[in-house]
Amino acid sequence: MRLKHLISPLDLTVDAVDDIIDLGLKIMENPEKYAHICEGKKLATLFYEPSTRTRLSFEAAMLNLGGQVLGFSSADSSSATKGESVADTIRVISSYADICAMRHPKEGAPMVASLYSSIPIINAGDGGHNHPTQTLTDLITIKKLMGRLNDITIGMCGDLKFGRTVHSLINALVRYKQIRFVLISPKELMIPDYLRKDVLEAGNIRHIETDDLESFLPIVDILYMTRVQRERFFNEEDYIRLKDSFILDAAKMQLAKEDMFVMHPLPRVNEIASEVDNDPRAVYFQQAKMGVYVRMALIMHLLALDTIPIS
Amino acid sequence: MRLKHLISPLDLTVDAVDDIIDLGLKIMENPEKYAHICEGKKLATLFYEPSTRTRLSFEAAMLNLGGQVLGFSSADSSSATKGESVADTIRVISSYADICAMRHPKEGAPMVASLYSSIPIINAGDGGHNHPTQTLTDLITIKKLMGRLNDITIGMCGDLKFGRTVHSLINALVRYKQIRFVLISPKELMIPDYLRKDVLEAGNIRHIETDDLESFLPIVDILYMTRVQRERFFNEEDYIRLKDSFILDAAKMQLAKEDMFVMHPLPRVNEIASEVDNDPRAVYFQQAKMGVYVRMALIMHLLALDTIPIS
Amino acid sequence: MRLKHLISPLDLTVDAVDDIIDLGLKIMENPEKYAHICEGKKLATLFYEPSTRTRLSFEAAMLNLGGQVLGFSSADSSSATKGESVADTIRVISSYADICAMRHPKEGAPMVASLYSSIPIINAGDGGHNHPTQTLTDLITIKKLMGRLNDITIGMCGDLKFGRTVHSLINALVRYKQIRFVLISPKELMIPDYLRKDVLEAGNIRHIETDDLESFLPIVDILYMTRVQRERFFNEEDYIRLKDSFILDAAKMQLAKEDMFVMHPLPRVNEIASEVDNDPRAVYFQQAKMGVYVRMALIMHLLALDTIPIS
Repeated sequence: MRLKHLISPLDLTVDAVDDIIDLGLKIMENPEKYAHICEGKKLATLFYEPSTRTRLSFEAAMLNLGGQVLGFSSADSSSATKGESVADTIRVISSYADICAMRHPKEGAPMVASLYSSIPIINAGDGGHNHPTQTLTDLITIKKLMGRLNDITIGMCGDLKFGRTVHSLINALVRYKQIRFVLISPKELMIPDYLRKDVLEAGNIRHIETDDLESFLPIVDILYMTRVQRERFFNEEDYIRLKDSFILDAAKMQLAKEDMFVMHPLPRVNEIASEVDNDPRAVYFQQAKMGVYVRMALIMHLLALDTIPIS
Repeated sequence: MRLKHLISPLDLTVDAVDDIIDLGLKIMENPEKYAHICEGKKLATLFYEPSTRTRLSFEAAMLNLGGQVLGFSSADSSSATKGESVADTIRVISSYADICAMRHPKEGAPMVASLYSSIPIINAGDGGHNHPTQTLTDLITIKKLMGRLNDITIGMCGDLKFGRTVHSLINALVRYKQIRFVLISPKELMIPDYLRKDVLEAGNIRHIETDDLESFLPIVDILYMTRVQRERFFNEEDYIRLKDSFILDAAKMQLAKEDMFVMHPLPRVNEIASEVDNDPRAVYFQQAKMGVYVRMALIMHLLALDTIPIS
Repeated sequence: MRLKHLISPLDLTVDAVDDIIDLGLKIMENPEKYAHICEGKKLATLFYEPSTRTRLSFEAAMLNLGGQVLGFSSADSSSATKGESVADTIRVISSYADICAMRHPKEGAPMVASLYSSIPIINAGDGGHNHPTQTLTDLITIKKLMGRLNDITIGMCGDLKFGRTVHSLINALVRYKQIRFVLISPKELMIPDYLRKDVLEAGNIRHIETDDLESFLPIVDILYMTRVQRERFFNEEDYIRLKDSFILDAAKMQLAKEDMFVMHPLPRVNEIASEVDNDPRAVYFQQAKMGVYVRMALIMHLLALDTIPIS
């Protein structure tokens, strides 16, 4: 059997994504059924830059499956800085662990690792490039909340130009039917051209680009919020004029549908006011929890343990 | 059932403290009986500043109970520095773990975390404020050695002004009967006013304040040593004059009772000469060991596992 | 029973080394037989300086045996820098774990620790001094590949003056019969006098010292490569003149025997060209894997678990 890796969100077929999501939801309902399935197996978390949330989500996932974890949490606390190549490192780690989650500041590093590895590699974020388990987390959350991954009007709000989670989620969702995008951002931070032309227009996907959150809030099924970083603006004047338009607060939430959901990849800074946290439609912390279930399912998938019938 | 946390040593009633200590002593006698009680459970150690001894004591405790551990050991190796609030972090960690030990340089951070957490929070030290599991460690050690927590003459020696372990231990012990304190320190480092007035005098607790270790050493049942930091002194002259008076060595030990015990929260610098280490009355390393048992009992208590009869 | 430690490679008798190697090879063949033998036991990895490969090798070994791991990966993320002595630290750690692997930048630190410890200490590298588990790794690799530890012609190439792995391996191999050394290095980096006189000449061990890798490559059974660091050379001119002579590439590999093996303690920088990696005679990544098995055997040996018959 060919060794499987997950480097880019689109490495997985739609069927594979659906299987992983469905398995994640099954795990959520009966976690104890899966509590021993990775016994004797080890996950290596190789984090060349710190990302506590992502690392702990992977570690929780592996521990929940009965497996064990080893690794490092930053290049500082590892000797990775001694100048060894990623290729050599992963060939050694292949002797220490059964599966590896790698975070690296350089784009492409997990891909290089996968070429030399004899264990499955999961890209846990490489620079501004890919972060496929965030996309899986977003998808399982939508599936759980909506019961489906098609026929959805999703609003995406904030920095749509540089936000890799948004780009990945758009690429993942266009593979399903009847997805409608409401892309809400300052003009300076609209989605990149290639996404507009090669993905949305080429695929004949319904979409609107706007800088008006309030007007479009009432029609979205899901609002996916992201951070607008001050340093992305060309001038301070624009920042001050625009920033409040992209902050979600209780007043704006009154405009939204009763069964709408607010998602956020976290960490959140101030783009969602804390008064929104207790609104039942705010699901961003639940989203973090779904990230553990989908990572459990992914680990099982890559280790080919998802084909074993669980009694 | 209301979610329980341990933020301040006085959060626990005397009865709860006694129960935890008694459970800790039972665990010590039959550790194998408790070796699987936390199977499938995870402790998150969120250490925003390094404290190796405390962190490893918690991790050993959880592993001894059959549980697992994840977390970070310093803010550097975590992305906590990205500006996420403690409130948001703990809401995410609540999805990853069943219980959390948090160390933080800012006073009050674990308290804030407990307001947003859906898992029990243990304060593993917040600035100069509280460190309740050190107090529990001190109490279980005294109970084990003396067989009781009342009718004790305890000497406390060193920096009594800034030493939070001393303050917490005084607050914890005054809840028991017939405790007599001999408070030995340089004049500059006597206990704070509030402790003298609001606790000792208000409670009519017998106590002496002195700078003469040698004279009072013969009457104490326990001598609790702490470090005197050079930088606490107003001038170098005082430091040089006084420092030796507060160093425990073999000569001074000859003045003490045969069944007296020397405790120390560790790390020790030079306030106890290494020649004392082999004296059977030196119990500070045993004290560190008791810290694991009492943390095991505490974890069981906060997870409500201490009510399960162990066959 | 006397508490056992492993501080220097020569702490173990030849018989003990052979037993550990044979156990390591048995584990390799049936790892599942040993997967629970350390259940309930904990390894402390105290790494006062980062060494990711060594640390993870120990952790993988302990996890493979069903044990658990706690510790720190660098002095930065530990409070070891607070000035506590190694003696005090290990007395506390003795209460937290059953066995300890210690890496320390100061020569002799693990030896000091062993004097105060009540659990076995394994030296995981102390400065330029000793690194006994690397030597055990080298020996088990040779035994697995050659089927024997005597009657071997071993070439050692690179920096033979400062390379502690080379010195330890020479000291370990001269205890076996009919070992012949081909010592290949720049003149500036030949083996130290004491090794030549007190070990090789005194023991009447056959050896050649040369700077000519190509001429001697055809006769060696094993080529043990090490790095030649630029800063070891007295002048740039020598470095440029000599460096290529000590780089192993595909062309040089054609000179070697068909059943020769290339070993390297890793990390490798450029002293072995990557084109050699796919040569079946290149065994340096396999060597890293053998390091896990021999550490499993060592942990069992030091915990006196190697005398328990495994059904």
